[in-house]
Amino acid sequence: MSQRAIRIIGLDPGLRHAGWGIIDSIGNNLVYVADGVVRAEPKLSLAEKLHFIHSALTRIVAEFNPAEAAIEETFVSKDARATLKLGQARGVAILVPAAAGIPVAEYAPNTIKKSVVGVGHADKDQVHHMVKVLLPKAKAASADAADALAIAICHAHHRSSWLRLRA
Amino acid sequence: MSQRAIRIIGLDPGLRHAGWGIIDSIGNNLVYVADGVVRAEPKLSLAEKLHFIHSALTRIVAEFNPAEAAIEETFVSKDARATLKLGQARGVAILVPAAAGIPVAEYAPNTIKKSVVGVGHADKDQVHHMVKVLLPKAKAASADAADALAIAICHAHHRSSWLRLRA
Repeated sequence: MSQRAIRIIGLDPGLRHAGWGIIDSIGNNLVYVADGVVRAEPKLSLAEKLHFIHSALTRIVAEFNPAEAAIEETFVSKDARATLKLGQARGVAILVPAAAGIPVAEYAPNTIKKSVVGVGHADKDQVHHMVKVLLPKAKAASADAADALAIAICHAHHRSSWLRLRA
Repeated sequence: MSQRAIRIIGLDPGLRHAGWGIIDSIGNNLVYVADGVVRAEPKLSLAEKLHFIHSALTRIVAEFNPAEAAIEETFVSKDARATLKLGQARGVAILVPAAAGIPVAEYAPNTIKKSVVGVGHADKDQVHHMVKVLLPKAKAASADAADALAIAICHAHHRSSWLRLRA
């Protein structure tokens, strides 16, 4: 029996760097498709940065046509200004799949780490190392792109229960 | 000499209620055009809410075709979760004019109050009262719509210095 490939995009948004990573989940196998980082010029205004991130992610979604999207449940920091900035970038990043009719799953940071490394308290280096082990062909061009791939891997592992919860 | 009308949209974003208000600034005169509130159903997911707000505001901008947009510099609360939610709604609201090529000005809450009421420590009721005085034809359907009109009025008063700063 041939198994259908489910294409997943993971998103790791930020106002300056928005990471994205795309994999195909085929049965129990994961196949790397693409990853990258959208970088907004620091000199741009807030409105211009948001527009730039939105346009770039919209092009990526149109090019790779994922069926499902996943994003980290944001770490809420004590720095309210940083939280507001991240919220703005996150809103625009979530909007992109939503506007394309693609459902968006959210995962807690520890769920993502546990899904990729096996433990919830793994550090960033362990996560990035395991992303390369699980997806040997991944460029994982930067930490943001590797994080986005980790989010996509997490969704591949959890999507059946996520689908049941949505039903 | 006839003076050109500058159409301004004020935005007061939130995840459940996003207020908007449109005025024409003609020399020293302000003319009310329209206002309203975009309400996202509470039962929608975050992604669906953001998509709904984005679609509704995009239609409003396309219908009224403002030349400039204004938004409040967000009050950063101690409640990090509330700040994150507001940030997400704000990112999507700022994106709408930015994607249409409309510049977006930001004003501190006290600047908006001072511009409408004359003092920076005015309360909400005073602001809403003065919005009705300055724009007698305004529906100001709700507090969020009245706030959005106040932001547009503030921009009408400050746009010449804002234009000089941008030049």
